[in-house]
Amino acid sequence: MGSILVVGSVGLDTVKTPFGEAREALGGSATYACYSASFFSPVQMVAVVGEDFPKEHLGLLQKRGINTDGVEVSRGKTFRWTGAYEYDLNEAHTLATELNVFEHFRPKLPAAYRQSEYVFLANIDPELQLSVLEQVEKPRYIACDTMNLWIKNKPDALKQVIKKVDFLFLNDAEARQFTNSASLVRAGRILQSWGAKCVLIKKGEHGALMFGKDKFFAAPAFPLEEVFDPTGAGDTFAGGFIGYLAKQDGDISEAILRKAVVHGSVMASFTVEKFSLERLKTLTSEQIEGRVRVLKELAHFDLD
Amino acid sequence: MGSILVVGSVGLDTVKTPFGEAREALGGSATYACYSASFFSPVQMVAVVGEDFPKEHLGLLQKRGINTDGVEVSRGKTFRWTGAYEYDLNEAHTLATELNVFEHFRPKLPAAYRQSEYVFLANIDPELQLSVLEQVEKPRYIACDTMNLWIKNKPDALKQVIKKVDFLFLNDAEARQFTNSASLVRAGRILQSWGAKCVLIKKGEHGALMFGKDKFFAAPAFPLEEVFDPTGAGDTFAGGFIGYLAKQDGDISEAILRKAVVHGSVMASFTVEKFSLERLKTLTSEQIEGRVRVLKELAHFDLD
Repeated sequence: MGSILVVGSVGLDTVKTPFGEAREALGGSATYACYSASFFSPVQMVAVVGEDFPKEHLGLLQKRGINTDGVEVSRGKTFRWTGAYEYDLNEAHTLATELNVFEHFRPKLPAAYRQSEYVFLANIDPELQLSVLEQVEKPRYIACDTMNLWIKNKPDALKQVIKKVDFLFLNDAEARQFTNSASLVRAGRILQSWGAKCVLIKKGEHGALMFGKDKFFAAPAFPLEEVFDPTGAGDTFAGGFIGYLAKQDGDISEAILRKAVVHGSVMASFTVEKFSLERLKTLTSEQIEGRVRVLKELAHFDLD
Repeated sequence: MGSILVVGSVGLDTVKTPFGEAREALGGSATYACYSASFFSPVQMVAVVGEDFPKEHLGLLQKRGINTDGVEVSRGKTFRWTGAYEYDLNEAHTLATELNVFEHFRPKLPAAYRQSEYVFLANIDPELQLSVLEQVEKPRYIACDTMNLWIKNKPDALKQVIKKVDFLFLNDAEARQFTNSASLVRAGRILQSWGAKCVLIKKGEHGALMFGKDKFFAAPAFPLEEVFDPTGAGDTFAGGFIGYLAKQDGDISEAILRKAVVHGSVMASFTVEKFSLERLKTLTSEQIEGRVRVLKELAHFDLD
């Protein structure tokens, strides 16, 4: 089983959805990704929090075996995000972002992290993603995620990252925005031409489209009647993916990548059922495998 | 092989897309559905045209073996539709609709049509759909399609139709509009509670979601880099579905329904590559089966 390194944000989220509101709940791209990956493989976390960060949150991550030696406690306040979703739930409306300790964060990897084989660069400033990559000695597989903010403000740094990654996560709107292509099929191919060996375009309730070496894979989404809070869905997806992949003794074949995507999709389907990590906290391996089997049946048809 | 009856519109379409323009091209829901179904099974067509309807259009349908005895030539002008698509291509903007001979159309089935086993009620006034159903003696399987216009203007008649059908086609926007539900999963279940045994929600480039007796099926869409003109995609989808189904010697199992949906999805992927019936005119069975195999591979993943 390979060791996973995850760098990203840890923060306190205040989220309003049509179904309720959560105040200062544990959030952040690294939080969701690490928690999700921990269901499959050991995880090492790189992030920064402020002095006000509640100790029980770190305890929650440690209880799942996540190594938090790389979580720096910095002078100042923890990163905070305030957002809201309308009834369609497809788009987050950011109401406020307080960078706080994130503003001057320069990730420094503990010595023990530098041999990590699997690296997931969760959504964070692409310059920080690059600086983490420089500190990893010989990664076997690198995946990364990003968001509209970096596509708009730091496209060149982001393209530097993309050149180095094996697997790029984006949602459909971001893929269209970055490539200036209305067609998702073309968008995926453009992103591959920029250097990402494999691209996954996430489409929320419509599943995800993976652009492999020379094949497509359409991963279904678990059909939920209600999405309670989509916050963290993408991070959880990616965490499940890299966690599943790291468990496979170095096998990174097309067949394994597809299964990893399906496991990521299933993990995301749980996260959106409650606020923050609430649903993942009570999740079991049996429940994960149950939904994987549902997706298998959902997508199956025979040839003549 | 079962005989298929299709009722719907035949018209002359003027369509503008970002890629070009077609003037008074052969169109209409029955046209696309019959042409598509004819690749799999014999088809009988019920529709109305005006005295100005070009003879070569009827000839084109007859050349594919479609029985056009039920196509009434009425005094007056043929139905005409003028529409345009923006770059996203998901929504048709209707610029003009001239009902013409459609205004007073009362479908009368030729005697030979009344024993049809498979009936497809293509998009047309639900009252006309009902009047056709009354004239079929003992249908084995009834499918129907509709559009936002009838959902808005004739919801009660449409619900009468839905009570009688085995298979209901709708696109995602129509399903949400009709059921007043943002969730497609809930929308599908509501539509089933109204009497449709099976519901298919079409999602364009995202494929389609079938609500069966107690199972979902997520049918992938063929990944096209460019959609040239989406006009007729839904009608072609439904035609391919009913055509494939009628070919199966009475087998209407879940496995067959899934394969029928996949064949419908593939047929639609060809129609959108050119204006009108242009792409279907040169289509071969080998090309159809080629794309079915691509979809099979696209959707495949192993369980652990």
